[in-house]
Order: sequence, then C-alpha cells, then structure tokens
Amino acid sequence: MTVRIGVVGTGMIGQDHIRRITDVVTGAEVVAVTDVDIARAERVASGVGARALPTGQDVITDPLVDAVVVTSWGPTHAEYVLAAIAAGKHVFCEKPLATTAEDCLRIVEAEQAHGRRLVQVGFMRRYDQGYRAMKRVLDDGDLGAPLLMHCVHRNPTVPEAYHSEMATQDTAVHEIDTIRWLLADEIVSAQVLTPRRTTRRFEHLQDPQVMLFETASGVRADVEVFVNCQYGYDIQCETVGETGTVRLPDPADVWLRQSGRLSSGVLQDWKRRFAAAFDLEFVEWVAAVREGTLTGPGAWDGYAAAVVCDTTVEALHSGRAVEVRMKDRPAFYES
Amino acid sequence: MTVRIGVVGTGMIGQDHIRRITDVVTGAEVVAVTDVDIARAERVASGVGARALPTGQDVITDPLVDAVVVTSWGPTHAEYVLAAIAAGKHVFCEKPLATTAEDCLRIVEAEQAHGRRLVQVGFMRRYDQGYRAMKRVLDDGDLGAPLLMHCVHRNPTVPEAYHSEMATQDTAVHEIDTIRWLLADEIVSAQVLTPRRTTRRFEHLQDPQVMLFETASGVRADVEVFVNCQYGYDIQCETVGETGTVRLPDPADVWLRQSGRLSSGVLQDWKRRFAAAFDLEFVEWVAAVREGTLTGPGAWDGYAAAVVCDTTVEALHSGRAVEVRMKDRPAFYES
Amino acid sequence: MTVRIGVVGTGMIGQDHIRRITDVVTGAEVVAVTDVDIARAERVASGVGARALPTGQDVITDPLVDAVVVTSWGPTHAEYVLAAIAAGKHVFCEKPLATTAEDCLRIVEAEQAHGRRLVQVGFMRRYDQGYRAMKRVLDDGDLGAPLLMHCVHRNPTVPEAYHSEMATQDTAVHEIDTIRWLLADEIVSAQVLTPRRTTRRFEHLQDPQVMLFETASGVRADVEVFVNCQYGYDIQCETVGETGTVRLPDPADVWLRQSGRLSSGVLQDWKRRFAAAFDLEFVEWVAAVREGTLTGPGAWDGYAAAVVCDTTVEALHSGRAVEVRMKDRPAFYES
Amino acid sequence: MTVRIGVVGTGMIGQDHIRRITDVVTGAEVVAVTDVDIARAERVASGVGARALPTGQDVITDPLVDAVVVTSWGPTHAEYVLAAIAAGKHVFCEKPLATTAEDCLRIVEAEQAHGRRLVQVGFMRRYDQGYRAMKRVLDDGDLGAPLLMHCVHRNPTVPEAYHSEMATQDTAVHEIDTIRWLLADEIVSAQVLTPRRTTRRFEHLQDPQVMLFETASGVRADVEVFVNCQYGYDIQCETVGETGTVRLPDPADVWLRQSGRLSSGVLQDWKRRFAAAFDLEFVEWVAAVREGTLTGPGAWDGYAAAVVCDTTVEALHSGRAVEVRMKDRPAFYES
Repeated sequence: MTVRIGVVGTGMIGQDHIRRITDVVTGAEVVAVTDVDIARAERVASGVGARALPTGQDVITDPLVDAVVVTSWGPTHAEYVLAAIAAGKHVFCEKPLATTAEDCLRIVEAEQAHGRRLVQVGFMRRYDQGYRAMKRVLDDGDLGAPLLMHCVHRNPTVPEAYHSEMATQDTAVHEIDTIRWLLADEIVSAQVLTPRRTTRRFEHLQDPQVMLFETASGVRADVEVFVNCQYGYDIQCETVGETGTVRLPDPADVWLRQSGRLSSGVLQDWKRRFAAAFDLEFVEWVAAVREGTLTGPGAWDGYAAAVVCDTTVEALHSGRAVEVRMKDRPAFYES
Repeated sequence: MTVRIGVVGTGMIGQDHIRRITDVVTGAEVVAVTDVDIARAERVASGVGARALPTGQDVITDPLVDAVVVTSWGPTHAEYVLAAIAAGKHVFCEKPLATTAEDCLRIVEAEQAHGRRLVQVGFMRRYDQGYRAMKRVLDDGDLGAPLLMHCVHRNPTVPEAYHSEMATQDTAVHEIDTIRWLLADEIVSAQVLTPRRTTRRFEHLQDPQVMLFETASGVRADVEVFVNCQYGYDIQCETVGETGTVRLPDPADVWLRQSGRLSSGVLQDWKRRFAAAFDLEFVEWVAAVREGTLTGPGAWDGYAAAVVCDTTVEALHSGRAVEVRMKDRPAFYES
Repeated sequence: MTVRIGVVGTGMIGQDHIRRITDVVTGAEVVAVTDVDIARAERVASGVGARALPTGQDVITDPLVDAVVVTSWGPTHAEYVLAAIAAGKHVFCEKPLATTAEDCLRIVEAEQAHGRRLVQVGFMRRYDQGYRAMKRVLDDGDLGAPLLMHCVHRNPTVPEAYHSEMATQDTAVHEIDTIRWLLADEIVSAQVLTPRRTTRRFEHLQDPQVMLFETASGVRADVEVFVNCQYGYDIQCETVGETGTVRLPDPADVWLRQSGRLSSGVLQDWKRRFAAAFDLEFVEWVAAVREGTLTGPGAWDGYAAAVVCDTTVEALHSGRAVEVRMKDRPAFYES
Repeated sequence: MTVRIGVVGTGMIGQDHIRRITDVVTGAEVVAVTDVDIARAERVASGVGARALPTGQDVITDPLVDAVVVTSWGPTHAEYVLAAIAAGKHVFCEKPLATTAEDCLRIVEAEQAHGRRLVQVGFMRRYDQGYRAMKRVLDDGDLGAPLLMHCVHRNPTVPEAYHSEMATQDTAVHEIDTIRWLLADEIVSAQVLTPRRTTRRFEHLQDPQVMLFETASGVRADVEVFVNCQYGYDIQCETVGETGTVRLPDPADVWLRQSGRLSSGVLQDWKRRFAAAFDLEFVEWVAAVREGTLTGPGAWDGYAAAVVCDTTVEALHSGRAVEVRMKDRPAFYES
C-alpha cells in the first residue's frame, strides 16, 4: 500500500521533504500540496505529479490524502495539526509543534481525545546513527546511571534575522529533545550563561550562549550554542555515566596529510550532517503510518520541548536558573 | 517512469538486491525473478508481488522487463549478460562479469556490436562516500601525481570452501577495480607474497596474502588480504601522491571511555560496511537506466578485473611477478 | 654551577621531586632534607647523599642550600616560603602556596618587599606540551578572542578522606590556574552545579561537580570534576575562539584492533599523565634559579588560585554564583 | 659515580649528543672530545668544560675517559669501535656500526674475544614509547603470532647528496633494526620495488621505494621509503598478528577546528619526532655503562643491519628478491 501524502507548506524544508518522499522513501507519494504562495505550490506540485490545493484544510481533508506533512510557517502549525487530528489522519509536523506551549497542550489534549497517536514532530536527531548508538550504549546500562551531558551546537554563521531567543527555539531545541530522549528523563530547570560575544555576529545577538539544564533525576546537561563559529557546522555530545562515557564521533571524512597538517573536513551545513537521519526519519514514519504504530517523537515531546524552550528564554532574560513548569505526563504518552 | 526489473538468481545477494530495489530505490520495481531453485524463486517473487519465471532467458526476454539484474551462480553470468545485450536491455551483473577473461571479452565485443553501453558490473566501492571523497582529492590534483597505494582487506573469518585463489577472485577483486578506477590507470603486473600463515584458518588456505600491483604509469599498489583476521571486517586504503596522502577514514562509531580503554566498534561484515554504497549503486543505476546513460563500472572494467585476477592467481602459483596481458581498450570504452 | 637544593618534606611528592632533581635534572643536587618524620628524612637523605636536618628552618638557612623546595604538609607551606624569602632564597612550593588567601597575600607582600621574584608554585600543567601548544595557538591570535573553555578533570577513584571541597582545592585548582594562564585573564565569579551523585563514591562526597567560571573579559569556562569515574585519569580542555577551537589531544598510545574494537589505552594516574611536565618544570626552574629570572607561576598566581578556590567552595555551599573578591594585581607581578 | 665520556666526532649529531649528555643525562659528563676539524673540537670542548684531544685514539685511551661515543664520519666508525674494545671501554657508536659487513664482523669477533658486551649501536627507535608499547603488546602474545608489518618512513625533502642507496642505508636501516627487534626474528630476504618517481626530487634519485622483507619465521614486512614527501616527517608502523593489529599513534598535537578543517600538526623533522627516544637512549646507556650490563642494540644488531642493507641495495640494483647471507648468530649474542 502506497501512503498518499499531502504537504502543507512548500518552502525550502517543505520542498526538501517532498523530494525525500518522492526520491528516497519507497511506498509513499506526495499527492497534494499547498502554500501561502499558491504559484510556488503549483510549481512544486507539477514537479512531482501532485495537485496544488488552495488551503491547508483542503489538503488535510482531501479524501485522497492518507497522511499530512506540515512544513508551513511556525505560527500556523497548531491549526494544521489540530485539523489533521480532527480528520483522524497521521500528521508529521516540522518543529516546532506549535509556537506556544498552550497550543502544544491543545494538540496533546486533542490527540488524547482522539484515542491513539497521530502526531509526530520533526526531531530528526533521534534517527541519526551516532545518537542511536549512544542511546543503545546508555540503555544497555554498561556505563551505569548517566550523570552529565556535554553538548555543543555550532553553526558557521546565521543571518541578521536570527535573534538571541532563537538560540534556544531554533537551535538548542534539538539538544533539548535529544537530552530528554537519550536519558528518558524530563528537564526540570534551565539557566543561561552569556559569555563575551564574538565580534563576528550581528550587533543584537547574544552569541555564544551556554545553557544549563537539570533533569528530574539530577543529570546536568550543558549546551554550548555558538551560531557564528565560522569554521563549520559541528554537533558534539558526550554523556558521562558512573563508569564511563560515550561520545558522538566526528562525521567520517578522508584524512589528508598535506602541508604539515593531518586534516579532515568539517561539514558546513546541517542538511548534510543530518541527511541520512532525515531520510530514515521519513522511511520510518511512512512505515509507522502504514502499520498504524507511531514510535517517533510525538505531541508530548513537542509540548515538553516548547515548555523547556520557554523556560530557557525566560532564563536568558532573567539571568537566573528557572524552574520548568510542565504538566504531568499523561499515561497515554508513557512509552 | 518506473523501471521494471527482472532478477536472475534469488540467492542471498539476489534477495538482498530485490529488497533494495523494492524498499530503498524509488522508481523501480522487481516484476520477474527466476532461480535454479524454482521454489525459492516463487517464495521470493510472492514476497514482492513479482512473477517467478522458469528460466533466466524467460526473465530477460519478458516484454514487461525493462532491465535485468544477474545475481545467479558466477559461471552462468556470461550467458545471461549476453542474452540481455541480445535483447537490447540494460543489465546489472554482480561480480564477476564472467568467470573467464575470454567470456568477458565476448561480452565486451557484443556490447560494442550493439553500439551503446548496456552492462554494469557490481563494483559497489565506487559508490562508497569515502572512496568517492578520495577520488575527488586525487582528481583535483592537490596531491600531485599518485605514486603509491596501500590497501588492506580483512575479514573476520571465511568458510572452509574459501580457497587460496579466492583471495584474489572474491576479495582483492574489489581492490583491483578500486585501484584502476581511483587512478584512472591500468594494472600491468602482479606479484603475490605468501607470508607465514595464521593458525586460525582451514589447512589448505594461504592466508594472509600480500598482492603487489604495478600500473601503466608506474604506481605501485600493495594489497593485504587477510580473511581470518578474527577481529572484524576492515577496509583500509591510502593513496600517496607527490605532495601528500589521502586515507579512508574508519567507519564512524561512538567513542567509549571505559575500563581503561578509549574504544570504538569495528564492523563485522561487508554488508554493513558497504550498505550505503550498495543502496547508492542501485539508485544511480536505476537513474542511469531511465536516462539511458550508464556511467558506472562497465563491461570493460569487468574484463580488466578478470584479466588482472587471472594474472594474480598465476603470480600466486608461480611465486613471481607476472605481466598482465590485456587487449587494448577500445575507443568505445574511453570515458 | 650546580644548584644545591634543600627539600622540606620527604613524603611521596617530596621523594618524587628529590628523585627528579637527582636523576632527571642536570646541574642540580639535593644537599639537605627534613621531615616531621625525621627517620624518613634520614632514609631519603642517605639515598641521595644529602644531609637530614632537624627542621625546615635549618634547611632553609643552611649556607650550603641555594634554593628550597617545599613539599611538606599544606598548612606549613606559608611558614617555609616566608622563611625562604627572609633568607633571600628561591623557593619552589608545591600547591597550595598557603592554605588561606591571607597567608598567600603575606607571601606576596613579603616577596614584593624583598624586591625580586623568589617564589614559584607547583602548577605543572604550564609545562605540559599540549597546554603549551594550546597557549601558542591562543597567543598567535589565529582563533580570534577566546570566548569559552570546556575542561574535564577525571580520576578513577579517590580515597575516603577526599571531601567535597577538595574537588576544588586539590583537583580543579589546576584548571583554575590553567584558565588564568591560558587566557592571561582573571577569574571574577564562580558557581558550582551539583549533579546526581555517582553510586561509586564515599557517601559524604558530592561527585561529580560542574564548576562555572567567568573571567574579567567575559570568557566562560566550565570544569567537570569527576573523581570516581572508574575508567581512568582523563584531562580534557577545549578553548573556543571567535573563528575556531583548539583542544588537547588524548595522550598518544598504540592503537589495537582486536575483538571487534579499535582501542587505545587511557592513563590511570596523574603522575604518568604529567610526568614530562613535572620533569620540565624542574629543569626550567633550576635554570631560572641559576640565571635569577623566574618566569613560572609565582606567588601572585598562588594567591589568585587561593582566592578563586575559596570563592568556589563558597559557591558550592551556597548553590549560587559568587563574585571573586581579589586584590588588584600589583605592577610587580605584571608579566 | 659520574660516567666520564669521550666523544669522537663533534659534527651536528656529535654536538647534539654532547648537549644531551651534559644537559639531559644525570651522572655523566663529557670530559674529552676530538674531531678532524680540531678547531671545532676545541670550540665544542670549551663549551662544556672538556678537553679537546688531537685524535680519536687519544680520546679512547685517555685514562680519564670511562666510555666512548663515536659520532665521527661513518667510514671511521670501525676503527674507533675496535680501539674502544681494545681499551676495554664501553662504546656507543652512531649508526652505522661500520660501513661494511666485514668490518662489522671484525667488531663482533673482537667483542666476543674480549668476553663481554661493550658495544651499543645508535638505533634509537628501540627507546621510543610508541615502539616500546608495540613491543609489549607483541611480547604479551595477545595478538597471536605476528604475520605482517607495514612500515612507512617519510621525510619532507632530502639534499642532492642523498642517493638511491641511502634510502636503505640511512633511512630504512631504522626499520630494518625495528623489524628485527620487534619480532625477535631475523630478516632472510629483501626485494625493492621502484614506483614512478616523484617530480619533486633530484634527478638521480629513485624516490619513493618500497622494500619487501621476509623473516626467518615467514613474517612479511613492507617498508615505504619516501624522502621527498613534502608534507612532513612521518613514521608509521603496523604489525598484524593472528587475532589483531597494533599500530603506532600519530604524535600527539592539539586539534584545531578552523576554516572548515579539523587538523593537527605533522612534525617536520626526525629530531623532534625522536627527541624523547634519543634522551632515553643515553639515560639508559649511561646507566648500563655504570652497572656494566648492556641491553641496548649491540654489535650483532649492527652487523645484521649491515648485511640486510647490503642485500637490500643489491636487490635495488638487481630488481629481484635477494637472499640475505648472514653468519649464524653466536651464542654470545643470544638475549
């Protein structure tokens, strides 16, 4: 059975997912798309033999659409996800699930009311081979209980529109999900350190930032966010357990010995760093949709990330450690 | 347009390719299969909604089959490849192209007579990201002219049926193709050193072996083949140019610090080492079939590998360096 | 001219330095020693042809002693260092310079009153090749201004007597000096995070701890101290600048490929990790004594480390970030 | 007891050893030196408070000289070593022990006639921590019997005077000794491959070369010698055993992430690569002289290296594998 997918939002990331569903994922096809720029939607649709429909609601309720991918502008996510739940259809929503914790909570409640999981959020790192190997090591328990995590998230540069809160909302949000997932633990407090700023940034931006998280079981995770590091896109993560540590490898590249240096390339963008993870994310999502059993990051993960992001932004502004105020996780979302 | 594929031979590697075409490659489907064990062919066929046909000829000439994958027993390869050429269909043939250089040559001649390239041989390393990065470095010329290559090909163990000639025919054949491709150069002589044998082998086997190749432009390549190394499946390759060297990375795995060791896993089998390469090989082959322009390893590469393998086996038996006696490459096969 | 050295304190570290001065450093000899355990002093003295004297004062004022090494019990350091200054002799004092910031300050004032530098403190990391290479990179300015430092200090285990304050006083004190020296900057605040504790510790100990330092120019340095990490003695340090980062290498060891792992040894104790640094520390100190120009870590560095340690311990107890209250650095100590 | 050393030959390497004995080694002093350039000998002597004597014989027979270091021109080595044996004094001779195998043999015979070991040859790699760690691994037997060795010896450039035979005599001679020592095995045949030459060489030189050695127990060792590799001084060595491999680490250097590259420095000269080994070589030799028990590389090792070098040069000229014709090792030299 081919899963027929409708895509709401045909911007850069939407087009990338459409290409992925078309060229990489077997057993799925994009049948309908829409965009606020309807001309763009039509161009994209014709490229893959899909129909361009006027609105997101049209796509979601189209009887030929089995499942929905939401890649529209962030503030519209909640509306479309709720519509998909109302239509009883699986929906893959790029992060954020919604731009406010309240909206995330509405989705969580709507999904519970529906009675089974329909929502997946685009936290693609859970599909990265390195992170998965780390999770296996942690779950095997060979390192004892986890105690600490050290994370680094660096981008070469960011455009002027990137502001200080985005260091949390757009960047560290991936680490926030990763920490929660790797440790199977909830974040309970956040603090943000604001080091001397790099001169290679737009004036308004606090860059770098160091975020300090504490989990319910007392694990401390520090996350360096440095989005104008110049040299490359670089993701690092080390988890320290009672008897040892596990660390992500640097992406494999050929080693050169030349001009007095032993060297290897550093990737320059997140697309290439997580290309295989994005592919696997959709392969597994389509399989899960077909079999009706979602296991990927869900609505609760989207809600929790939103609350922790809000807390972190509050911590950035206040300069103090701030407690995370989150609902209790419903039994519905116990894994 | 979906490429409809017929598969001749549904053993382990055949099934693996069928799964790949079905689950990984978009725009292709397996429509017909056959096998000497027709019951097996039927089981495999039913799993993917294909038809099981009585013979390879039936598959090849079936009007619903656009292109053929040959994964039958080696000695039957030539017959099926020639039949596919006769039918004017693209054919992907697992290595070896044929079990004798003479048969390879017949294929080369048949393809030339046909007038355009139809044959691709399963040298999947050309699709490995590490080798491709190495080729880019070499082609860019930053290291000057290549002078030396050091290759290592190790397997944890081999079964009793693996004999000393297979160290060339089944194992080093990949390095032979890789050397030719990376250097865009032809191998002109071969010698085999026979070190002290590991005690962890079947009695009849010379293991390890060191093969020494020379290319037309004078590059020297050494290939260690050690197929009972116990510790893992390990492929290494370093090319030395006039001003520097380039080396394959070890496959990336998480790093553990535990019990006094810093360590990372070594893969245990070739399937996992080259999984992404196998996938890409078929993705690109299907695209090439669709567009009618093959660029992968072809009949001439299969012939050249066969001649070099014959020479290497002769060198193993004689204990001396042996010259490669190869036809001149026809203009048809100039890239 | 051979530098004749008197050693006050012949415990483990004292004996180690005596062996070093005798066997490793040329142009120096130990001529007099003392210890609270006079029998031990006599045994040690006879082993190197030195005299055992009754008290530290006797050693310091002995006319045959050119320079003094203080390796006695911490609380006695200040007295002996002050006596050496009073005697106008160079003195190498193992850390801490004194057990209170007030006593350090008395030494600083005494040395200034004397009019030239006589005191060196045993911060041996400044003599480690890795840290020195890092300092060269930072001083060259190729990475722009430093913004962040990430430090890790792990020991396999500690004895029961090791208490939570020692994580600062005995362990992180090395990072405190290293941060100040590498950045040529002063630490202005400290905070301590107290993660979930490892079960592999003595009950009373907070282990691990994460210390957060800020420098006058705004650099943020985090230091993980984990003294029961089980797997080895592991020192890591990465400095992040505006255009790149520099990181200590792991100590070089042979690489094994065995039993499915690629691995290398992790050292088990600090003596071996910093053996070459300890040697070089004494080689350079003896040369500096001979030439009368100290450049190593001095009394001011001992004072600054003491103040930062006091602040860090206060931060551990209070759970809050605490400002460092330090005197202004006198011109005498400008480098 | 201070070991009083006489040095014959005050050229670059002689001066380096004099500095080492003076500044690095405790318990030794240079008391007499000589050189064909007597003015140079006098300058060097006055720098360390030694006497300059007219001839090597004067130095060797001087009653104040306990042990002799021979660092004169290669062709004079045999004469001085024989004189030292005649004088019953320990003698450290830089490689080569003598410039002909016959002269080496005369030394071997003279030393046997004398009745105890007096001669050490300057094969400093036996004192390198990496090689020593490799030897421990091999001796422990964890990897089973050794089967293969892969060695690489690269220099950035060589001067015009360096000729093709020196690739063996000056360069690979270190690997020849290392192979013999690591494996505790004798080399029985040699072959030399002559790849395409780098354009960055003086016209007369065959560079690179690949030397192939076989040992008595059947181990095969390949040695790449490439002395104009441009990028650095690079020594690599991997030994392959029945169940795993052990490989020298690259020298530790800080890791930079900058301008899209992860990189570390490659050393540029052998002095720095083996500085610690040279130091330890003399520390251990002086200790051995003092205690009268040499364990370092001796006259037999010098002889064996000479014979293997002769064989290798013959193999270079003949293009064929050549058998090593060596005397049987006398019981005197069994370890």
